[in-house]
Amino acid sequence: MQFSALQLATMLDGKLEGNPDVKVSNIAKIEEAGEGMLSFIANPKYEEFIYTTNASILIVNESLVIERPIKSTLIRVKDAYSSFALLLEQYRYLTGNKSGIQQPSYIPKSVKMGENVFVGAFAYLGENVVLGNNVKIYPGVYLGDNVIVNNDSILYPGVKVYDNCIVGSRVMLHAGCVIGGDGFGFAPQPDSSYKKVPQIGNVVIHDDVEIGANTTIDRATMGSTVIRKGVKLDNLIQVAHNVDIGTNTVIAAQTGVSGSTKIGQNCVIGGQVGMVGHIHIADSTKINAQSGLSKSITIPNTSLTGSPAYDYKSSLKSQAIFRNLPDLEKRVKELEEMVKQLLQERAGV
Amino acid sequence: MQFSALQLATMLDGKLEGNPDVKVSNIAKIEEAGEGMLSFIANPKYEEFIYTTNASILIVNESLVIERPIKSTLIRVKDAYSSFALLLEQYRYLTGNKSGIQQPSYIPKSVKMGENVFVGAFAYLGENVVLGNNVKIYPGVYLGDNVIVNNDSILYPGVKVYDNCIVGSRVMLHAGCVIGGDGFGFAPQPDSSYKKVPQIGNVVIHDDVEIGANTTIDRATMGSTVIRKGVKLDNLIQVAHNVDIGTNTVIAAQTGVSGSTKIGQNCVIGGQVGMVGHIHIADSTKINAQSGLSKSITIPNTSLTGSPAYDYKSSLKSQAIFRNLPDLEKRVKELEEMVKQLLQERAGV
Amino acid sequence: MQFSALQLATMLDGKLEGNPDVKVSNIAKIEEAGEGMLSFIANPKYEEFIYTTNASILIVNESLVIERPIKSTLIRVKDAYSSFALLLEQYRYLTGNKSGIQQPSYIPKSVKMGENVFVGAFAYLGENVVLGNNVKIYPGVYLGDNVIVNNDSILYPGVKVYDNCIVGSRVMLHAGCVIGGDGFGFAPQPDSSYKKVPQIGNVVIHDDVEIGANTTIDRATMGSTVIRKGVKLDNLIQVAHNVDIGTNTVIAAQTGVSGSTKIGQNCVIGGQVGMVGHIHIADSTKINAQSGLSKSITIPNTSLTGSPAYDYKSSLKSQAIFRNLPDLEKRVKELEEMVKQLLQERAGV
Repeated sequence: MQFSALQLATMLDGKLEGNPDVKVSNIAKIEEAGEGMLSFIANPKYEEFIYTTNASILIVNESLVIERPIKSTLIRVKDAYSSFALLLEQYRYLTGNKSGIQQPSYIPKSVKMGENVFVGAFAYLGENVVLGNNVKIYPGVYLGDNVIVNNDSILYPGVKVYDNCIVGSRVMLHAGCVIGGDGFGFAPQPDSSYKKVPQIGNVVIHDDVEIGANTTIDRATMGSTVIRKGVKLDNLIQVAHNVDIGTNTVIAAQTGVSGSTKIGQNCVIGGQVGMVGHIHIADSTKINAQSGLSKSITIPNTSLTGSPAYDYKSSLKSQAIFRNLPDLEKRVKELEEMVKQLLQERAGV
Repeated sequence: MQFSALQLATMLDGKLEGNPDVKVSNIAKIEEAGEGMLSFIANPKYEEFIYTTNASILIVNESLVIERPIKSTLIRVKDAYSSFALLLEQYRYLTGNKSGIQQPSYIPKSVKMGENVFVGAFAYLGENVVLGNNVKIYPGVYLGDNVIVNNDSILYPGVKVYDNCIVGSRVMLHAGCVIGGDGFGFAPQPDSSYKKVPQIGNVVIHDDVEIGANTTIDRATMGSTVIRKGVKLDNLIQVAHNVDIGTNTVIAAQTGVSGSTKIGQNCVIGGQVGMVGHIHIADSTKINAQSGLSKSITIPNTSLTGSPAYDYKSSLKSQAIFRNLPDLEKRVKELEEMVKQLLQERAGV
Repeated sequence: MQFSALQLATMLDGKLEGNPDVKVSNIAKIEEAGEGMLSFIANPKYEEFIYTTNASILIVNESLVIERPIKSTLIRVKDAYSSFALLLEQYRYLTGNKSGIQQPSYIPKSVKMGENVFVGAFAYLGENVVLGNNVKIYPGVYLGDNVIVNNDSILYPGVKVYDNCIVGSRVMLHAGCVIGGDGFGFAPQPDSSYKKVPQIGNVVIHDDVEIGANTTIDRATMGSTVIRKGVKLDNLIQVAHNVDIGTNTVIAAQTGVSGSTKIGQNCVIGGQVGMVGHIHIADSTKINAQSGLSKSITIPNTSLTGSPAYDYKSSLKSQAIFRNLPDLEKRVKELEEMVKQLLQERAGV
């Protein structure tokens, strides 16, 4: 896709300075932008680049003062950052705006679809699947029987959703994530083997959730594993059976949450964190990367770090002393010698 | 599927109290069950729910005493929990009991299949693949050349098994797991680059193994990476080349086992554990979540925690003091001042 | 495939001792090789096996002295290990040498292909995809619009590459890895929800890179996430947006690298390591498994361990004392009692 400076200025209701016919087909950071590219300057720190960039078009603030000749065509707007973000979104929308049913795909008669749906080739829909309006099912996606995907959701290539799971509206599931695999439940037997506990629940993903590539969310033993509105999960995260993650909580990559643990809303959880099962994490908890949570957090707004995790500031102090443990040990040794001498002198007197 | 109270009572050889025609189409926990659902009470703690639940049918123990009117139809059996578990299994079996070959799928003439096999659409079977009786290959599964899958095994959507790997009987491979990818073996070259060491072994998975979603098990350099009978692996686990995991060992999510390490039988290994290569873990070892194993464990039945991991109880003691390190450091400082004073007084005398 | 001893001796320019017509169809370690198999002896430690092995053919050094009767046919060469490695590579090449376009696959007219390309069934190529010579696209691979895969690269089953990403020459992407998923970028909103920051950059993978099964590499917000020449990534690794990994750096399984972090060349990074975003790791840094990097490493050739990570040797010393913390605490307590007594005596005088 190509856009002329005139088209962009019209879209953004901006004031054009320079050649209105120059065209761009790509977007880049100001320090990397070349000919045929669009960029922007919002931060005064980057203003120096305006005289050296090869970007064909720049979106800048109304107030920007130009002191020397420049190569780029300018579009002046009230808030350059907001205008640029708006263009990014539209760019992403236009380049991702697929629709129609590609062949071969596997779609039983019992499937119900809304308007403007995209189903890519090699996608597989089970019996009674329901797809809302504007849903995009990329190639190679698998949806088990009775899966529901609500309006405006996007399932990227190779996503697998097992039977009976429910996906909300405006949800984005990235490539390779697995929703609704069996929870890890086994009953030990007298002969040291394990018997599988059937996992007959499902996963319910509420609206506005984004789930990263190759992340796995297990179905509940009974009932539902629940991912609430606005939750953002990064890549390669493990969410076990019957977990409940609260509204607007974000979790970074490779974190694991064990079975039946309930995480509050507005939590911010780092990468590679581990949580044992059956604990509660209070609202607005902040957990540092690589922490290990073995107990419930009952007070909202707590910050934690370490494995086992505890209060962030105290933990940092312990860590600092940990680094100097050889020194501390040496100090104790010296004290022991001095005290020994004092005691000997006393005895000797 | 729908079942009437009479059908269920007959199946379970139970005694029916209430309307024999009431029907259920779903299963739920007693505290969440609504109309049209089946639930059970085995634990006396939950008996109070019997007067408030909307479950249409309840499975209860013969001995249960009802003191007030209830809405549900009861089926009385000797052991409510066992009867319910039996129903769960049958439910799971019936809802998952697929068979036949869906189109399009890719099945060369050299493939051999047993009876009652399911092959989903977009599944790919390599040359000389052998599928035993009742094997279920879900949509989008890939089996390389010469792969063998024995009786009653289930490969969920998007499982990938590379050439020459062998899958036992009653094995369950969850969506997205990768069996037999190349081991991570590279020989350093004089120019600082690495040369790939060809990985020509395979993976052998014995009977009754379950492997979680997106878990990866690498093929051996030569010989076999071996997952023994009854092993249960959770999601997102990494098993490197030439690893050997013993009978009935269970490993929680996101654990990684490096090359050539041999894990004994009946071990219980937590999530996010890491093990270096070329070590041996004795039978019945218990390893806490997030531990790091850098040495062999030679004594069976040991419990470990920490990174690096050592004896569980000792490690907990060190962790407790770690939390109080700032206090310990303060005590040493106070001692230093007191001893300094004592020494000065002595010198002053 | 079968090879006779005579064929192999000719290929390796070796001297044949024994039956020239004996055939092998498989390769194994000397201690595991049976009839119909080829093995080798390079290390004197393994020479004892020569009298007991059932291997049909053995590759051995010219100089090897045989003292008792043996069953195997020998091929004597200058360097048994090199000759064997050569055979391994050829074996791997021959068994993996697929070409042609399998059906059904999805290939728009805008796709451009070099010579001798393999595209497996159920593979999906987006608009304007370019495949170089000898590229192998296994079944079920997804390539988004405008993806370029250069000569001699292999994409194993179920690999997903999003729009606009670039894959170099001689690259190997293992099953299930996801290249170019959206970076994890969200702007917090006044109502505690998050707004997605569009991710419009791409991933650029240079030549000779190998990437493990189910590893995920996110596209840049703008610009490129870059994996440089010769990098080797193991399975289940997370590489976030705008990361840059330097030439010939190797990273073991389950490590995570946060956004915009830049790793130098020739680094050796263990498994389950975590790195925060926006740091720089100097060339030739060595990072122990399970370490956590929260700060830049500015001095090349540093070795680190721990979480938070610091100098390897110092960290080992602290870890040793950590194990004895209960003892250290006891020593401090004893000192306190002795000093208290000394002080009391002084006061009492």
